Amino acid sequence: MDKKRKICAVITARPSYSRVKTLLQAIKEHPLLELQLVVAGSALLDRYGSAVDFIKKDGFIINEKVFMVLEGENKTAMAKTTGLGVMELSNVFYNLEPDAVLTIADRFETIATSIAAAYQNIPLIHLQGGEVTGNIDEKVRHANTKLADIHFVTSEDAKERVLKMGEDENYVFNTGCPSIDLAATILKNPTLDYDPIQKYGGVGADVDPSKDYIVVMQHPVTTEYNEAKKDVLKTLEVVDALGIPTFWFWPNVDAGADGTSNGIRSYREKHQPKNIRFFKNMEPFDFLRLLINSKCLVGNSSVGIRECSFLGVPVVNIGTRQNKRLRGDNIIDVPYEVEAIKEAISEQLTNPKNKQSSIYGNGDSGVKIAEILSEITLRFHKTITY
Amino acid sequence: MDKKRKICAVITARPSYSRVKTLLQAIKEHPLLELQLVVAGSALLDRYGSAVDFIKKDGFIINEKVFMVLEGENKTAMAKTTGLGVMELSNVFYNLEPDAVLTIADRFETIATSIAAAYQNIPLIHLQGGEVTGNIDEKVRHANTKLADIHFVTSEDAKERVLKMGEDENYVFNTGCPSIDLAATILKNPTLDYDPIQKYGGVGADVDPSKDYIVVMQHPVTTEYNEAKKDVLKTLEVVDALGIPTFWFWPNVDAGADGTSNGIRSYREKHQPKNIRFFKNMEPFDFLRLLINSKCLVGNSSVGIRECSFLGVPVVNIGTRQNKRLRGDNIIDVPYEVEAIKEAISEQLTNPKNKQSSIYGNGDSGVKIAEILSEITLRFHKTITY
Amino acid sequence: MDKKRKICAVITARPSYSRVKTLLQAIKEHPLLELQLVVAGSALLDRYGSAVDFIKKDGFIINEKVFMVLEGENKTAMAKTTGLGVMELSNVFYNLEPDAVLTIADRFETIATSIAAAYQNIPLIHLQGGEVTGNIDEKVRHANTKLADIHFVTSEDAKERVLKMGEDENYVFNTGCPSIDLAATILKNPTLDYDPIQKYGGVGADVDPSKDYIVVMQHPVTTEYNEAKKDVLKTLEVVDALGIPTFWFWPNVDAGADGTSNGIRSYREKHQPKNIRFFKNMEPFDFLRLLINSKCLVGNSSVGIRECSFLGVPVVNIGTRQNKRLRGDNIIDVPYEVEAIKEAISEQLTNPKNKQSSIYGNGDSGVKIAEILSEITLRFHKTITY
Amino acid sequence: MDKKRKICAVITARPSYSRVKTLLQAIKEHPLLELQLVVAGSALLDRYGSAVDFIKKDGFIINEKVFMVLEGENKTAMAKTTGLGVMELSNVFYNLEPDAVLTIADRFETIATSIAAAYQNIPLIHLQGGEVTGNIDEKVRHANTKLADIHFVTSEDAKERVLKMGEDENYVFNTGCPSIDLAATILKNPTLDYDPIQKYGGVGADVDPSKDYIVVMQHPVTTEYNEAKKDVLKTLEVVDALGIPTFWFWPNVDAGADGTSNGIRSYREKHQPKNIRFFKNMEPFDFLRLLINSKCLVGNSSVGIRECSFLGVPVVNIGTRQNKRLRGDNIIDVPYEVEAIKEAISEQLTNPKNKQSSIYGNGDSGVKIAEILSEITLRFHKTITY
Repeated sequence: MDKKRKICAVITARPSYSRVKTLLQAIKEHPLLELQLVVAGSALLDRYGSAVDFIKKDGFIINEKVFMVLEGENKTAMAKTTGLGVMELSNVFYNLEPDAVLTIADRFETIATSIAAAYQNIPLIHLQGGEVTGNIDEKVRHANTKLADIHFVTSEDAKERVLKMGEDENYVFNTGCPSIDLAATILKNPTLDYDPIQKYGGVGADVDPSKDYIVVMQHPVTTEYNEAKKDVLKTLEVVDALGIPTFWFWPNVDAGADGTSNGIRSYREKHQPKNIRFFKNMEPFDFLRLLINSKCLVGNSSVGIRECSFLGVPVVNIGTRQNKRLRGDNIIDVPYEVEAIKEAISEQLTNPKNKQSSIYGNGDSGVKIAEILSEITLRFHKTITY
Repeated sequence: MDKKRKICAVITARPSYSRVKTLLQAIKEHPLLELQLVVAGSALLDRYGSAVDFIKKDGFIINEKVFMVLEGENKTAMAKTTGLGVMELSNVFYNLEPDAVLTIADRFETIATSIAAAYQNIPLIHLQGGEVTGNIDEKVRHANTKLADIHFVTSEDAKERVLKMGEDENYVFNTGCPSIDLAATILKNPTLDYDPIQKYGGVGADVDPSKDYIVVMQHPVTTEYNEAKKDVLKTLEVVDALGIPTFWFWPNVDAGADGTSNGIRSYREKHQPKNIRFFKNMEPFDFLRLLINSKCLVGNSSVGIRECSFLGVPVVNIGTRQNKRLRGDNIIDVPYEVEAIKEAISEQLTNPKNKQSSIYGNGDSGVKIAEILSEITLRFHKTITY
Repeated sequence: MDKKRKICAVITARPSYSRVKTLLQAIKEHPLLELQLVVAGSALLDRYGSAVDFIKKDGFIINEKVFMVLEGENKTAMAKTTGLGVMELSNVFYNLEPDAVLTIADRFETIATSIAAAYQNIPLIHLQGGEVTGNIDEKVRHANTKLADIHFVTSEDAKERVLKMGEDENYVFNTGCPSIDLAATILKNPTLDYDPIQKYGGVGADVDPSKDYIVVMQHPVTTEYNEAKKDVLKTLEVVDALGIPTFWFWPNVDAGADGTSNGIRSYREKHQPKNIRFFKNMEPFDFLRLLINSKCLVGNSSVGIRECSFLGVPVVNIGTRQNKRLRGDNIIDVPYEVEAIKEAISEQLTNPKNKQSSIYGNGDSGVKIAEILSEITLRFHKTITY
Repeated sequence: MDKKRKICAVITARPSYSRVKTLLQAIKEHPLLELQLVVAGSALLDRYGSAVDFIKKDGFIINEKVFMVLEGENKTAMAKTTGLGVMELSNVFYNLEPDAVLTIADRFETIATSIAAAYQNIPLIHLQGGEVTGNIDEKVRHANTKLADIHFVTSEDAKERVLKMGEDENYVFNTGCPSIDLAATILKNPTLDYDPIQKYGGVGADVDPSKDYIVVMQHPVTTEYNEAKKDVLKTLEVVDALGIPTFWFWPNVDAGADGTSNGIRSYREKHQPKNIRFFKNMEPFDFLRLLINSKCLVGNSSVGIRECSFLGVPVVNIGTRQNKRLRGDNIIDVPYEVEAIKEAISEQLTNPKNKQSSIYGNGDSGVKIAEILSEITLRFHKTITY
């Protein structure tokens, strides 16, 4: 093969970037592949902790930036953002002429990437298909699967599901999750080598990371739009009452982001909790170091399911957002109830670090995927297997 | 239930309208349902035989018209038309506030309807899922399935597939295809009661419908874009050479429509075939009467698979467009090869009318679907069944 | 005339609404007119103090809501918001079929209203043409004039300019500014009859409105994008140092909004000024009562030029935003310089209330405009007069 | 100056290209300028005689192609095409980072170029401002003037108008029209050196260019939308009756294009005129040679006003489309009336070639404009002069 295969990855949000960083690196470094990087949507926006800055700092060259987020923080704006994304990304792929396009997981706007690629007969690669959650993400994820030609899934049960949906087994690979790759690197040298407040500022109390502390990440759940504020107030109440030093991360964009964010803001204004420091964002390695040295992660982030299972960090997972995702022993699941959340945190605080699990991979996922992408026969024409 | 359920149907193309006409009628007439009708895309456009005129003539009230077709007749324009459709239809649903939205089959722009509804938490009804063809339609159809909450399929094998993809069996119904309903009405009184040329004009030779004649409908196949012109020229060559009176229908819009249309135009200009009359469009009943009185349908239209199987009209099905769709005994499948097409037509011309088949329904599909829609518990939240 | 003339007003921002409220009322109440109201853009958005709530509270019925603001807070997002606005508003006018459309002043997105109307041959009414400022607003305002068919201007010098640009004198009217109408009502009963903090909350110091106080409204200046933060910090520094009780309003959306807003947020976090209360928005009447009882308005809002000249409230107008707008004796103009701002405020604090001026109207503007709209021959075809 | 100034020209239609070809060449060849070329809208579309092919053949490199034409052939589609154009061109300018953008004349979509540039603070160059016609073009043209920073006009009366509208005289230049430059080249060697039918095909009668012949170009007039078909039928009737050999050009895209085109198609089908050959398009030089050797140009093209005045070709100008444009002695103006058109053509056929006029320039316009663009101080901030 004379010409390198051009793999175009579309990053639309901060957490998506962290999740695929090692894959992007592996594509960039592979002798037979060329990385094309498109940064779009909330990944470009300041008020969601613009991922774009981290991406540049990590040495990636960004081929195109796509502004497509429509204001409104409601479902209509989500739908229209997606439509706009299809239009914009169609242009981008038309101009970049990639050999394959990579779409990630199940955020609402990821289907824009899928359509813009599939409709232009560009082979579509989908990451993290076959999982189960149970809201709009569920629909988006499986629709992405049906639009995609190559599937990289992160666990055996996910692979099973993708095959059951009628995908060709020659194009479905359980490579583990690239997010685990970062965690694997950190495991080798887990010391918290920076001061979070000094490096990232944030707002709120002066929290000391040399003490026992917890980390909170709670996102709004799309189909429970109006509940977002009420939900986050419960977690705030518990964490404030427990008094344990806490590093809390603002949610990323979504319909309802402002429900959660407003909840946090109004609580802060009123109660000024003495044990919580709020951050917008951290670089992935710093974040993982903060996590591995914490006593427990609280909230509903998929980080608790994936990275924490590999790292053995205890997790209190609240609500339905991670519903049915394969999980390790490190998790306690609770509903949005003050008592339940409180008890679960207390229990995890007394738990020793859990046994580490490799259900989401061994830390070589990025390299594995890049290798397959360099070899596989690309195609954009498929038929259901039954 | 005091308030009628508002069912919003989105019609984006001429053939889609014909296919669901009896369903629209059944919804309109159902005491517990209210029909909201959106006419969009090529269904509004003159040069594809604007369906909108037939719709009005049939007595339907159109709630919204959505212009969304981007010129360019290429894959990028298809993708952008879809993106634009998402944006426009999001507005429409926001304003109409339907209780459920109906998307039809697998044309590229039908996913716009699906996204605009699903992302706004409006229960999505999908018609004709679970079939198999094998081009971009394949991806679109199954993605529609994964975005939809209620599925009305047209045959048992289709139902099987939708269930295998992980849909809830309480929400998957084999009601047959509403397009068969029209055919059933016509079967009761099949006389050709109008003169096609007098009523519809058209261009080309003066063809006499009282003689033996055939009908041709050949559409471009999306993923074989550049082949469209070459393909249609083969059929033209055969039909011209056979000399049999022929009613030929222009293709509906698609990337490549101009390939097929140009093929027809250039052939006409050069050869002025003495036995072919070209039409843009007919009203569904007139079309079915023309069909039932013909010796054979030639081309790649799904009409050959569905309506003709029910009517027992012999069909020569060319190429891959109807790949793997369940078919009756009335079909001969051939590739795009002059000899094969010629032989197949000749054979069908000597065949007696085939036995009628009810694999695609019994003629009561519209009423059945409307009844289910009036009773079923609507929901927009689902989880894969495995 | 049997049928009422349908006048469709498009409100895209909070201050635009305040400015035309009496006109909307007058249209609504006029026996020959029917009001169609479209609320769009930032007027729908929470974080710009959603005007939509006030509009509803004032008893207006909203015919359509149009979400069109693209996130990004940069010039590209402004341009794309405008393009999206053209597309969305085209739909709206197509559906509402107004007899004339009203576009207001010179915000960047107002040209979307103008294009959507003019291109569909709907007579376009433009308010507040002929003024001079000197940034992107300048281009937008005069382009609106050239797209519009009927012009209502707010002062004699503005009328002069519109005529010089080649508009037909039969279609240019100096009716004064409808924003003055509200002010005229308030003048009759100017008592501050509510407690701002109790009614609107806000954040910051506990400011007592029974003491002497000032009001600040400072918006980013679009073409000086990067300066926004630096500029607002100067005003903050002065006002903080002066220590006078202050009611400060957040800026409305614009490219750079976040420059100004970030400036305010970071200053608050760091200095916690003891004399400033920050508000998002107030109802127009409450705002005018706050203003008329203040010692001085500081900033760059056009409220200083218009309402305050009529009310006789002293104003310190900072920077170029109101450049060349006709002004009364109540204004001191200063550049963005700490010393100059400080001196000007100090001077105004010792000034008695200025003589009131009617250069922007007498308080009957809304009624006058509605009357003209009910009588004038509508047309959408015009030719430059020279 | 080390770096070349990047001048980005946006071509949205076939006739716009012909008009500025020599300017594009002059920019390309200027040592201090770099040409960025964007081809958009109908210039990309086959059915309007895609200009893009000629552009490539002339050796220009196309930086971006922008598909933006919405189907529908009505005013709503025109408006939405423009909105889409703003969005798409905003991207293009964001990526190309031109030092200045060039928009041409007054087609409806040219304002998209203007907005996308002006709103991103890119200096905007407008060609052919200050003219007068009297339909939607009139509004668009003058709005373009008010959005633009640098004006190149084609005649003294146009310059006068642009200045009266309040533009800075240091930024308004009468350089004549670049379309005259091509004509000047042709004048040096006017022999018809090709056979139109052999080279361009076309459809219709076999017309001999060595005989006396006329040329017809008739476009739909936007605000007289429904009249387009009726209008063209009158011209067809006259030209058919006169029997003189005729080269007829299809209209370019516009709302109503299909009115005119349908008129031509239906007339052809019915009457098969024996003296008319229909063409889609020709290369500019070939077209000018055809024109200079003709007895008369009939229709409503601006070619009659500009190029023909310079070449001294007699013109019958029908209707209001060129209303009030400065014209030479070569023109007879007539309304859309059969008798009037007939008489005017007959008169022009007996007229000797008119005296040539240089009211639209001397043939060095492209070079002059390029020179000014290389020297002038670029700015994007302006204020009305009064």
